[in-house]
Amino acid sequence: MSKAKKGKRNVIVGQSGGPTAAINSSLAGVFRTAKDRGYKKVYGMIHGIQGLLEGRYIDLSEHIQTGLDAELLKRTPSAYLGTCRYKLPDISDNKELYDKIFKILNDLEIDCFIYIGGNDSMDTIKKLSDYAIVFGSDIRFVGCPKTIDNDLALTDHTPGYGSAAKYIGTSIKEIIRDGFCLETPKGQVCVVEIMGRNAGWLTASAVLSKGEDCDGPDAIYLPEIAFDVEKFVDKCKKLLEKKKSVVVAVSEGIHTADGTYISEMGNTTEYVDAFGHKQLTGTARYLCDVLSKEIGCKTRAIELSTLQRAASHCASRIDILEAYEVGGAAMKAADEGDSGKMVVIQRLSDDPYQAGTEVKDVHKIANDERLVPREWITEDGTYVTNEFITYVRPLIQGDVAPIMVDGIPRHLYVPGYHELL
Amino acid sequence: MSKAKKGKRNVIVGQSGGPTAAINSSLAGVFRTAKDRGYKKVYGMIHGIQGLLEGRYIDLSEHIQTGLDAELLKRTPSAYLGTCRYKLPDISDNKELYDKIFKILNDLEIDCFIYIGGNDSMDTIKKLSDYAIVFGSDIRFVGCPKTIDNDLALTDHTPGYGSAAKYIGTSIKEIIRDGFCLETPKGQVCVVEIMGRNAGWLTASAVLSKGEDCDGPDAIYLPEIAFDVEKFVDKCKKLLEKKKSVVVAVSEGIHTADGTYISEMGNTTEYVDAFGHKQLTGTARYLCDVLSKEIGCKTRAIELSTLQRAASHCASRIDILEAYEVGGAAMKAADEGDSGKMVVIQRLSDDPYQAGTEVKDVHKIANDERLVPREWITEDGTYVTNEFITYVRPLIQGDVAPIMVDGIPRHLYVPGYHELL
Repeated sequence: MSKAKKGKRNVIVGQSGGPTAAINSSLAGVFRTAKDRGYKKVYGMIHGIQGLLEGRYIDLSEHIQTGLDAELLKRTPSAYLGTCRYKLPDISDNKELYDKIFKILNDLEIDCFIYIGGNDSMDTIKKLSDYAIVFGSDIRFVGCPKTIDNDLALTDHTPGYGSAAKYIGTSIKEIIRDGFCLETPKGQVCVVEIMGRNAGWLTASAVLSKGEDCDGPDAIYLPEIAFDVEKFVDKCKKLLEKKKSVVVAVSEGIHTADGTYISEMGNTTEYVDAFGHKQLTGTARYLCDVLSKEIGCKTRAIELSTLQRAASHCASRIDILEAYEVGGAAMKAADEGDSGKMVVIQRLSDDPYQAGTEVKDVHKIANDERLVPREWITEDGTYVTNEFITYVRPLIQGDVAPIMVDGIPRHLYVPGYHELL
Repeated sequence: MSKAKKGKRNVIVGQSGGPTAAINSSLAGVFRTAKDRGYKKVYGMIHGIQGLLEGRYIDLSEHIQTGLDAELLKRTPSAYLGTCRYKLPDISDNKELYDKIFKILNDLEIDCFIYIGGNDSMDTIKKLSDYAIVFGSDIRFVGCPKTIDNDLALTDHTPGYGSAAKYIGTSIKEIIRDGFCLETPKGQVCVVEIMGRNAGWLTASAVLSKGEDCDGPDAIYLPEIAFDVEKFVDKCKKLLEKKKSVVVAVSEGIHTADGTYISEMGNTTEYVDAFGHKQLTGTARYLCDVLSKEIGCKTRAIELSTLQRAASHCASRIDILEAYEVGGAAMKAADEGDSGKMVVIQRLSDDPYQAGTEVKDVHKIANDERLVPREWITEDGTYVTNEFITYVRPLIQGDVAPIMVDGIPRHLYVPGYHELL
């Protein structure tokens, strides 16, 4: 039976990987477009594909009932549906699992499957769309990019990155100002640790603090460049000769030429996540201890931690709007028959900033990490260039005023829902 | 010669102790009122009394030239003038030092000396005004309260606290949301470390995250109550039986019944500041390590660190306005002949919130720490009561929209000034 005859049925959408301040805006975009295009139900997988396998999902219409609900959702951090860090096995290794997923999807009368996530999530889209082709399912699978890390291939940038960059730029600027006010006889070095295992996009955005009223951080260390502790100490020593308060931004993922993470040097315990990735923490603390010992200056280690991905109160308007558009574009692509595709953002111009969306083959994207280009890092590897600033500046423009209730931002909430997560 | 005959001369103002998001608003208030009341020059001590002793000061008129400059100053974090942590000796121990200070003040033709700070700063006001009485100077010394710690006696609250509380409430709410989204087989406990050595006002404000859309933190530990690591682990264990994501707020100053700081248990190095206070850091990290070992759950340690005192981008309107008023009231009091006084805020009603300023004798304030009352902490010592919420809620109302330039908040800046600090 052709689609045209049986009419549009249902959509299911999931979120996966680390959350961002913009991922729920994409969810709102998928929902709105699915409804506008005449789909009956829009289901949300709870904790992504992993929850779906356990039969966990909700009917999003019960959660987004009004325009105000949609606005609240756009301003709600974390992932409204919950996420997972679940990597599908190869089809040949476990066909039964795929059979099970497709049975669930068919039982729910799903036409379109939208997955909002990063590299690992695009791998899920790739495998499910491959299975659909091989075994003759006409469900369409489309990926919607999301990651604060900004490390997805083929897209100019990823939704979520702009808001994180705006928060980082703002916070680093406040930290730099704070550093000026205290008298410190031997000077102070503040080391700010920023997320980013292999890609330094987030740490690089510390440069956004720089402007007519602020010199910006004194050095920026990305994981793209091998880190040398001795050179770092020398650099700080030289900086302290010129100024009393030094602020340095470092990626959590910086490592020496032989691949040893700086965070490992200070930690006795090792944490590993579900993907087998080492949890990186303690980089700033370790470097501060070294500086304190070698130079004798005052130090302060700051980890921006969870807040850099969760600070909806400081979101970028461009980012939240683009996340919404990209969600809508993913839904539109699936509705129009695309499968095994991911929506990407294509930049048309820097100033005035203009960008549009396109769909690309997910096979070209999955598991491919996009790093900060070498030419956007200064030759000595301790700062970023103006080309990077030109790239990132448009992505942090404009604000999304939180909806304040009693002095605190309001988020979307349905009584009893959090207990399901 | 009487004041009336010689006319009004000059004012000098300083900032001291830890910075806040509101301390520069008080500076703007002092400046405006001094100018309105006909003083010629308003000098700013660079790095407080310590800088003054080295002859370091600026003419504030060169920095606040327009209404826009004043608005930017109100939105600028850190202490614009720089601060110090300098405690004056007793007059009897070093009269020469006082003679020197008064010579500098007399050379600058100072009538009024305003000091914006906390407990240690009020001690400075007390000693200088005592000296003035004993040795017959007619310079008036008035203190303007400031501290995120909210631990000054006699005042309902201190400017700077409201903005820090708003930032903490907002950030904890975002952290709680973030915790819902990830699947963690054995659950996760996130321990958020908040400033406060002896007084738990800041940590208590974590409760502001609680509302119709958020349950708030699961436990709150203040330094007012002796901390028991074993009971803490038990509490977390019980919480994890009911929910997957637990968020706990702890003061950096929590300590066991025998006075041992929890932060000391984890740290090998000990840091001491200029007042001989131990630097407290690593409390959350240590507790996470214990939980990880005892329960085997996932943990995350977050220190709000510098940002809680510097996050002007998330300031409370009530706080910024009150800080401005209090600055003006201190100047008014000095102008009208008060000396050895501090301005305090007196609350008239909670809802609708109404408050006014008064001047009180600084001898009753200095070096006296106001703690969170025992009856505002629950009996088991792991949360705060509704009375505390009624107290704190009005202080975080309203926003101060940052003046955004190129996507980042703008601060007041005069070229070349930062090099003086």
